[in-house]
Formats: sequence, structure tokens, C-alpha cells
Amino acid sequence: MGFNALPDETLEDLQIKGLYILQKKDKFRFGMDAVLLANFVSILKPKRVLDLGTGTGIIPILLAAKTNAKWITGIEIQPDIADMAKRSVEGNGLNDRIEIIEGDLKAAKDLLGAATYDVVVTNPPYSKVGTGFVNPTESKAISRHEIYCTLDDVLDCARSMLKPNGEFYMVHRPERLTDVITGMRWVKIEPKILRMVVAKEGQAPGLFLIKGLKNGNAGLKIMPNLVIYDQWGNYTEELCRIYGLNM
Amino acid sequence: MGFNALPDETLEDLQIKGLYILQKKDKFRFGMDAVLLANFVSILKPKRVLDLGTGTGIIPILLAAKTNAKWITGIEIQPDIADMAKRSVEGNGLNDRIEIIEGDLKAAKDLLGAATYDVVVTNPPYSKVGTGFVNPTESKAISRHEIYCTLDDVLDCARSMLKPNGEFYMVHRPERLTDVITGMRWVKIEPKILRMVVAKEGQAPGLFLIKGLKNGNAGLKIMPNLVIYDQWGNYTEELCRIYGLNM
Repeated sequence: MGFNALPDETLEDLQIKGLYILQKKDKFRFGMDAVLLANFVSILKPKRVLDLGTGTGIIPILLAAKTNAKWITGIEIQPDIADMAKRSVEGNGLNDRIEIIEGDLKAAKDLLGAATYDVVVTNPPYSKVGTGFVNPTESKAISRHEIYCTLDDVLDCARSMLKPNGEFYMVHRPERLTDVITGMRWVKIEPKILRMVVAKEGQAPGLFLIKGLKNGNAGLKIMPNLVIYDQWGNYTEELCRIYGLNM
Repeated sequence: MGFNALPDETLEDLQIKGLYILQKKDKFRFGMDAVLLANFVSILKPKRVLDLGTGTGIIPILLAAKTNAKWITGIEIQPDIADMAKRSVEGNGLNDRIEIIEGDLKAAKDLLGAATYDVVVTNPPYSKVGTGFVNPTESKAISRHEIYCTLDDVLDCARSMLKPNGEFYMVHRPERLTDVITGMRWVKIEPKILRMVVAKEGQAPGLFLIKGLKNGNAGLKIMPNLVIYDQWGNYTEELCRIYGLNM
């Protein structure tokens, strides 16, 4: 074991089951969205899971800790980030459950074989190219803007990679909900569960979590909002549970 | 004036600007969804408004009271219900702003002329035929199940009847959100504002309100939840305002 952090990397304690993760000091760092997404995924039986655009590898590592997923593949297009994610997996002694593949998710079918996963998860870039501020640090822009892949690329990949009746989990921004829902139905991954994430009770959502089922029947269940902070600005009971904090 | 209630009808006080409405004793009676929808509609300039499947005429009558809509048409396929709505309009002295047309919304283009409305509103039947309990009283079934018109019929009609950049407002059930969003985009009425309605803070929504813009750009705004009851089971401040109640 050992993480072999490079000079431009920091090692952070995930505060769950003794796990750590490497992050670049000046590039995209994983956020609460990844943690909420990992928590939203329900894996009861051991299954093969694919994380599209895995970045630091945060989602595979959290899923390995929190679920009994049997084999988790993370695919990441940026070589230095994929290399760092591999070292985080290695350092946590998770090589027997997680593999990190450096590659383009548009080629996932060739790299990994079509229809070979029970579950696909993704925390994709949220913004269309041409909208909003594009980060001057290229790696951050790749994580935030649809530079290497669009939402439709991500959904096409999910369709190819999922077994029949496979499950799809994504986190995204409210302004893209129409794109997400129409895109999912287009690729025959039917939206089944939707959950809005709000900073505080009474506020507009800042994120949403969505679960789809490949070839599922029409019919969406909308859950109660996931609320981050209580009225005093502290994490809610549910957030503490997600982060494994004592109340 | 005078409402000329038939023996199978009751006259109810809307508690707003001295308005009343006729309802059948044993058929579909307007509910909170119609009131919330009428309140969700924002009409700043005098405009031509069309209500698809107007039933009792509750939405045109509330819109006449709450907005400066210039001319409101309600179309209703059931002859006895359309007749009753006409008498409610007449009784309230609103013949100069509201017309009730007995007819099938699938023929609205021929009855009323295509692309002649600035705003289309609708509180459509929520359930697909073949799902759930079908009410044995035929009129209630028509109001609740897609017997005379499907969601796609309603959206097709809205597309035909709206002027370019016209506004569309609908209330529907969460389980149909995917159908509504994909259907709206299909007819080029882009979803712009979505608001979930919850009975109490922390609960799953029972309804949603959605606004679309004909030929609008992609980009959805999700508002904070509309909450009906506070923690003590009383109407929230917002609901009191909607119903015009004193706090």
C-alpha cells in the first residue's frame, strides 16, 4: 500500500472506513455531488458497476466502501487524472474490486465490451460548451464543460454498456432536467426515480439525482427533497448519515 | 344575472371577488389543482387565453378575477358540463371576458382558428386508460382518465392554438413528468418553469405545475416547492394568499 502522491497532489482522508483519495491541488476536486450520487446508488446484490468520467475515482472508491458492488470500472479520458485515480485505488488496497481505465467513454464499448454492466453511474460535465465561464485550467474545464463528451454521448454510452434491465444513476443540474429526461427516454433508459437536492428547506434545488432503468416502463417516482443544511446552517441528519458523521 | 342551478347542481361561493360556481353534485368537482394552476399562470398584459377541458369553468373564472386576461375561452366536450359552465360565467356577469365552447379539443383548430391564443392552460385527465380505478360515473372518468383525449392530444392542441412564443401552463401528477416533459419538447413547447406541490415540507410531491414557451430555448428553472400545509396542519402563508384568506 501507499499512495505515492505527486508534488502537485494532496492526499485526503475520506473519513469513511479508513479510505483516502488523491486530488490535484489546482484541478477539479470532487464535490458533494459525487458523494450524494454514490449514496443514491442502491446496490443490493454484488454487481458490475461502470463509472463514466470517473475523475479522481471518488465514486468507485465510495461505492466499494458503501455497497457490495463486486467489480467497479471507472473510465477517465485525462491521462494524469486516470493515473492518479489508479494510485488512489491501489493505495486503498482496492485493486481486487476497482479498475481504472484511461480512455474515451465514446469508445467504452470497444474497450470493455457492450452490455456487460449491471449498473452505470455518472457525474458528468454539467454545462454545454458556450454557456457560462469556461475554466482556464484545461482539466477543470473538461470536468465542468462538455468538451470531450456531451450529455448525449454519456447517455449513448450508458445504453451500450448496460445489460438489459440495467440501472443508470446520474447527478445533474436543474436547468438540464429536460435534456436529461428526454435524452434518457430517447436511449430507452426510462427515468424511474427523481430526487431534488436543496441547500435548505424552502429553496430552489441546486442539483438533482435521477435513476433510470434500461427498457423500463413509463412511470416516475419523485422523492422528497434531499436537504443539505438545517435552519441553523448545520448538516441535516440525512447529510450526517451520508457523510458518516456522528450527530 | 342569476345562476339557474339545476336540481343536480350546487352553487358554491369561490370566496374571491364575490364569484360563485356551479358544480354537479355527483360528478367531478374542481379541486385544489385547478386553483393552484390558475394562480401559477402569470398574465401581465391583456391576452387571449384558452383553457383545454375547462370542466366547471373554474380556471377561466379564476383567471378573469385574478389577472387582466382580456378574453378567455374554455373548451369542454361534455354537453351538460359545458352548459353548466356557461351558466356560471353568465351568473358571474363575465360574458364580456369568458366564452365556453362545447366541443372536442382535438377540433379546436377548426372551432377557434389556429395560432390565435397567447396563453393555453390545462388541468387535463391525469391517468392513462387502463391504469388505476376507473370511476363508474362516466363524467368523472372523463375528467380523470384519458378517455376523450390523451396527453399527446392536449399537447398537440396547445401547439396548434398558441401564437409563436405563446405560453403554456399545466398541472399534472409526478408519475407523468417524463411523459409531460418529453411530450412538450416534442411539440416544441419548451419547459421553462417547474414547481412541485407537496402537502407538507419533507414529503414527496403530489402534483407539479409546469410552464412552457412555444419555440423557447432549452433551459429549465425549478422553483422551490409549493407547500400546502404547515407543521400544524394549517394552510401555509402562500396557500392562504392563493385562496385569498386572512392570516
